[in-house]
Amino acid sequence: MTLKLHNFFRSSTSTRLRAALNYKGLDYDYVPYVLRDGETRRPDYLRRNPQGLVPTLEREDGSHLTQSLAIIEWLEETHPEPALLPADADGRVRVRALAQMIALEVHPLNNLRVLFYLRDEFGADEAKQKEWFIHWVTLTFGALEIALADSSETGRYCHGDQPSLADLCLYAQVWNNKRFDIALENWPTIARIFGELDQLPAFRDAAPPNQPDAA
Amino acid sequence: MTLKLHNFFRSSTSTRLRAALNYKGLDYDYVPYVLRDGETRRPDYLRRNPQGLVPTLEREDGSHLTQSLAIIEWLEETHPEPALLPADADGRVRVRALAQMIALEVHPLNNLRVLFYLRDEFGADEAKQKEWFIHWVTLTFGALEIALADSSETGRYCHGDQPSLADLCLYAQVWNNKRFDIALENWPTIARIFGELDQLPAFRDAAPPNQPDAA
Repeated sequence: MTLKLHNFFRSSTSTRLRAALNYKGLDYDYVPYVLRDGETRRPDYLRRNPQGLVPTLEREDGSHLTQSLAIIEWLEETHPEPALLPADADGRVRVRALAQMIALEVHPLNNLRVLFYLRDEFGADEAKQKEWFIHWVTLTFGALEIALADSSETGRYCHGDQPSLADLCLYAQVWNNKRFDIALENWPTIARIFGELDQLPAFRDAAPPNQPDAA
Repeated sequence: MTLKLHNFFRSSTSTRLRAALNYKGLDYDYVPYVLRDGETRRPDYLRRNPQGLVPTLEREDGSHLTQSLAIIEWLEETHPEPALLPADADGRVRVRALAQMIALEVHPLNNLRVLFYLRDEFGADEAKQKEWFIHWVTLTFGALEIALADSSETGRYCHGDQPSLADLCLYAQVWNNKRFDIALENWPTIARIFGELDQLPAFRDAAPPNQPDAA
């Protein structure tokens, strides 16, 4: 038995968890779902995850963990090395806040089910969906760029010279942005850090195009 | 010098942080902002919090912490008693996942700035904004009710008989729901837990109507 990751190649919450598992050196079976086909809304999946969202991590004992950030904190507690959070409380609160800027203020708004709601309830066509998506990315990435560029704590990565939880979220979100062709030129620090992360096999191997279900 | 909480009475991220500070027995100065008047978009506030969001916790040394969940984790690390997370990794991942269901899948979608965007870009009137708000609450509260009702880990509160991070989020979200008159009758476990929490002075004192800037 090994860990099973129920996920979708293009889901950014899946990408961040894949990178965390890779970085911790943990093997997992890859179980893909097609979100557009409603495969995560079926009863057998809802028993794993009552929200019908990806990712879900199935443990060796058959129990299921949900919510990517909670799962990553659990990985950090049960497999502390290599660390994804700094050792000091000040570093940890900074890394968690940077991660949450993306995980709370960008991703939930740009989820597929939200874009579908805009289409179905407000008649938003592809162009209006794209505007919506870009609006929330731009708002938060502008603030994130300031938070990163203005801090002496920022190093090769978001916090010093070791990848952290914040980098997992940044890396996954930049991949997600590619769906709507959002270039990074206005956010030089984010662009630089993404470039650094993209050199790391743990991150690169987690990127959407490198998954078995990539189109 | 004491902690300063930059916040807004009706903001649910502010409510959850106020309850955490109260529960930990920490005093703070209350600094209110009127979100609708753009008071958190002004340069002096953006220097505290480049996202222009509430809450921000200003520490005794003048440094600022942002993102309510990150701040609560910091409180937990620096003031561990009374605890807001269980001692065991399995309990912690469950509590964090329950908290994140609300903090990631409900609140970011129902933020004031999102409702304003719907109004300005999609012409959503008050009724359509209310529909949107209720849609996301209902979707997540349905799953949360199942997660709570189906688990033997649920006790007087979301996890056993001590309040936790999950309860902070649940309590704040139920208050937020009152803006749009969302009753709890379809979610009996959530309703019961809210009732329990509302008996606790730390939570009750954090509720929106009990703040100095309440209308």
